[in-house]
Amino acid sequence: MRSHYCGDLRASHDGETVELCGWVHRRRDHGGVIFLDLRDRNGLVQVVFDPDTEEAFARADKVRSEYVVRLSGRVRMRDEAVRNAKMATGDIEVLGKELTILNEAATPPFELDEHGGAGEEVRLKYRYMDLRRPDMLRNFQFRSRLTHVVRAFLEGQGFMDVETPILTRATPEGARDYLVPSRTHAGSFFALPQSPQLFKQLLMVAGFDRYYQIAKCFRDEDLRADRQPEFTQIDLEASFVEEEDIMGITENMVRSVFKELLDVQLPEFPRMPFSEAMRRFGSDKPDLRIPLELVDIADLLANVDFKVFSGPANDPKGRVAAMKVPGGCKLSRKDIDGYTKYVSIYGAKGLAYIKVNDLEAGAEGLQSPILKFLTEDAIEGILSRTGAQTGDLIFFGADKAKIVNEALGALRVKVGHDMGLVEGDWAPLWVVDFPMFEEEDGQYYALHHPFTMPSCSPEELKSNPEGALSRAYDMVLNGTELGGGSIRIHNPAMQRTVFEALGISDEEAEEKFGFLLDALKYGAPPHGGLAFGLDRMVMLMTGCDSIRDVIAFPKTQTAACMMTNAPSPVDNKQLREVGVQVRKEDD
Amino acid sequence: MRSHYCGDLRASHDGETVELCGWVHRRRDHGGVIFLDLRDRNGLVQVVFDPDTEEAFARADKVRSEYVVRLSGRVRMRDEAVRNAKMATGDIEVLGKELTILNEAATPPFELDEHGGAGEEVRLKYRYMDLRRPDMLRNFQFRSRLTHVVRAFLEGQGFMDVETPILTRATPEGARDYLVPSRTHAGSFFALPQSPQLFKQLLMVAGFDRYYQIAKCFRDEDLRADRQPEFTQIDLEASFVEEEDIMGITENMVRSVFKELLDVQLPEFPRMPFSEAMRRFGSDKPDLRIPLELVDIADLLANVDFKVFSGPANDPKGRVAAMKVPGGCKLSRKDIDGYTKYVSIYGAKGLAYIKVNDLEAGAEGLQSPILKFLTEDAIEGILSRTGAQTGDLIFFGADKAKIVNEALGALRVKVGHDMGLVEGDWAPLWVVDFPMFEEEDGQYYALHHPFTMPSCSPEELKSNPEGALSRAYDMVLNGTELGGGSIRIHNPAMQRTVFEALGISDEEAEEKFGFLLDALKYGAPPHGGLAFGLDRMVMLMTGCDSIRDVIAFPKTQTAACMMTNAPSPVDNKQLREVGVQVRKEDD
Repeated sequence: MRSHYCGDLRASHDGETVELCGWVHRRRDHGGVIFLDLRDRNGLVQVVFDPDTEEAFARADKVRSEYVVRLSGRVRMRDEAVRNAKMATGDIEVLGKELTILNEAATPPFELDEHGGAGEEVRLKYRYMDLRRPDMLRNFQFRSRLTHVVRAFLEGQGFMDVETPILTRATPEGARDYLVPSRTHAGSFFALPQSPQLFKQLLMVAGFDRYYQIAKCFRDEDLRADRQPEFTQIDLEASFVEEEDIMGITENMVRSVFKELLDVQLPEFPRMPFSEAMRRFGSDKPDLRIPLELVDIADLLANVDFKVFSGPANDPKGRVAAMKVPGGCKLSRKDIDGYTKYVSIYGAKGLAYIKVNDLEAGAEGLQSPILKFLTEDAIEGILSRTGAQTGDLIFFGADKAKIVNEALGALRVKVGHDMGLVEGDWAPLWVVDFPMFEEEDGQYYALHHPFTMPSCSPEELKSNPEGALSRAYDMVLNGTELGGGSIRIHNPAMQRTVFEALGISDEEAEEKFGFLLDALKYGAPPHGGLAFGLDRMVMLMTGCDSIRDVIAFPKTQTAACMMTNAPSPVDNKQLREVGVQVRKEDD
Repeated sequence: MRSHYCGDLRASHDGETVELCGWVHRRRDHGGVIFLDLRDRNGLVQVVFDPDTEEAFARADKVRSEYVVRLSGRVRMRDEAVRNAKMATGDIEVLGKELTILNEAATPPFELDEHGGAGEEVRLKYRYMDLRRPDMLRNFQFRSRLTHVVRAFLEGQGFMDVETPILTRATPEGARDYLVPSRTHAGSFFALPQSPQLFKQLLMVAGFDRYYQIAKCFRDEDLRADRQPEFTQIDLEASFVEEEDIMGITENMVRSVFKELLDVQLPEFPRMPFSEAMRRFGSDKPDLRIPLELVDIADLLANVDFKVFSGPANDPKGRVAAMKVPGGCKLSRKDIDGYTKYVSIYGAKGLAYIKVNDLEAGAEGLQSPILKFLTEDAIEGILSRTGAQTGDLIFFGADKAKIVNEALGALRVKVGHDMGLVEGDWAPLWVVDFPMFEEEDGQYYALHHPFTMPSCSPEELKSNPEGALSRAYDMVLNGTELGGGSIRIHNPAMQRTVFEALGISDEEAEEKFGFLLDALKYGAPPHGGLAFGLDRMVMLMTGCDSIRDVIAFPKTQTAACMMTNAPSPVDNKQLREVGVQVRKEDD
């Protein structure tokens, strides 16, 4: 129906007759002439209708915003004075000859031009309108190109694209499953996969050697800004590999994605053990663009007469840490109150600080509500260990280690951004040497998942589960976990040992994972892999704030679709067929 | 862990030291030497261990079938006498030096070599073993390459890969939905999509212009050999297009798939109206490789004194048809009895025939149980209209048109194969000009789906729904529907008219499709698309009998996974959370 896309017309088309299709982005009358900005996937072009072309002019007079039209006309240069350098097609315009209205349009529910002017609810209800905004379209073009580059890279490395089931068995990732009642097996349920983890391991047992998939995954969790009930992973697995192989391949993949799509040459990916990341940054996904670090000072404060510090300093699960903010003296009382409130989100009961107004002036040069509680030695130790200089501020965290890490870890990022300390655009790293387990109330939980290979023997794992490290690795970029993976257990004895440590009985293991334990018996190769969060990767690279901006039809925070009104009630006949009923209030 | 894949070694590697990983496919002792056939994704290679390499020999002595090993050795030419031309690596062998057992393997539950020897149940339970068979692996390599070619082709044509939701609203394709109870909206349900139909139309309204997706679709239907609860479509849609555009693009896509993967140059794709396909072949997906056709003879038999023929001949919904089988005289009584039974599956109450033993001999030369019921004129008419020659046989069908078409349509294919009449390897065609509706018991059903554009105006549709044709097109290959699509309705008035014809009230339309009707109001472009059944395409091209052979982890005929035992019971707590309970017997 057309000869060109609107957005592709340039001075080089001067004199050509073109046929265009698209939406009327704007319509203006000016000096007895009608100007239409016509929009299609590739951009906008200005079309002029003058009264000489009687019929077309009359039709152009009728069109309104978002009408769908087809038109023909001749490309001509604009007068120098009215060329628009901000518009890709701004050197030219089309002198319209014919115009057909293909479809009319009611007045849009919100202005497409005013980004953010409309509330998110109305934008989600009329998603197909919101997606017309050039920014949105660009996100999805970017996403499509990104998956293309990823596929090309992985296929070039011998990875096979294999689809794994969506209707499957409850998976062990630990989040809540979405369930699907079975009609043919009444009383039984499928679960939607939280990841293709076990299937990809079974493909390795099958000898597929190198698998990848851009895979839909499902978690029925309470949603935050960066979560959706369904999300997409770049999922891969390979056999006869070690950590270096998977990390090398995937690092190169991410490098080539950044190079091809953003023309960015990523810097080196440093490797950082989990313990170091927690110690220096309070986080297992540190944003290395921010030059602030945590410093342990428990030893300096173990004996002070101030329980807020000495308590955690003497608690094996406690942590006392300081974080120096260069130039932080300029923070106002109000700023610090704001940060105190901010860290309370993470459970911190307060936010102590010292302002180093004048390092040379001794205690006189320091300003702090807690100074009186500290010994001279402690103060000296803190100043020297943080390397504080005149003008700096030191924040303190003292609590259970978990709270200190979360509070100071988050504060670090916030202060770093607020004070303009962010260095560079992209700071990737690998976090490695994770503990196998987290302990809570005497129960162990897998830090990654129960199929992760420990870096010790089954015997060592049994005797010291808390000290055991895993062969896992996470790729972190700018404080976001881009992807995580590990070398997997390929031997049934080790797998049973890990299940045991997790308190999974033999019966439960057999019932839930019997097929995996079986598979490991019949000749499983050493294997490992990794999964990237595709939505998050696209969000980071396009500079969006929410993954909702890079998912075509996202759900709201209550996991509903405003456009289709899903989920929705279902008639009783349909429920009867699949053998379930809605639970009544008092059941 | 390796320097080469086993299957890649050739005479050109002679003298090289290689490191290999893989599975022990076979182990033989012969003349004091151990032979291992080592297998990986790329094939098999023979490795020889002799007692000189003491340690390795001792380990090689321990390995059994399907053990996973890593080994190193030197490639050398085999003696001329023992070269194996049937094996890609048959000119060489590897003289083993070192060997590590990476994993042991229990005796496999079935022999990998004996194709079809094991029952399907056990093969599905140990799917990861069945997938080790080289034939199976090849199917999935083929599938991965096919999607690669499809993606490259479509992206080259400007199609964007966009993901649409899996958790969505009940869709209107007419099959049973899989339901997912919502936790956050108690009593409400998501449905898994039967296709991305409405979402892709909304992407067109959003101005995405050209969309594609390799999309999972779900239908809770009773399964046949070529159906699965979840299956995959190559789904595409474009704006500002007409039939010719979509058919041209997709025909070229399929051509390039055949050329690149099978080195086959597909012949012309003829276009055939639905009515012609039904008339000549009794099917809307005729296998054109089979040179047998149906011929209408109702007019010849309307007045014979034989109700079996004259009844349907005078029934407006009846059909009386003849099918000539060249050389069919050689069919035995038993053959014909077999075919009679075969057509009874389709509801045919019998299978009349005439053998033309000698065309010149008049009635004497004909052999048939029904001859006595026919007038001389009728016989002459039948012989001339079918063009029967001496040696031919004519089958008859007389019943409701639907039964005749299904029975003779299926018989055509069966007889064609049985008698070796199949001509050529690949016979593609387009079937076009479908009716908009099928009528059953006074109710109209959409032959494609309710969003298909009629080729007439809303007024004409209202006045003659039965006569209305649609702008739909199906691509058929060798009697299988590869894909189907249409130009869609882009105008709300036409959409309402079609809903009306289907007996969908305004309220129901608003409730179920309100978002689509809304979207059509706000400037919907003319658009159309098509969806291919990927599983079926791969099945046809790899020569498999079942789509289960081209799906990595398929379900059984009762929609269960033998390997993971999905679906499975779920504990009450989990059901309570999502607000449902299993229906008790008497509810």
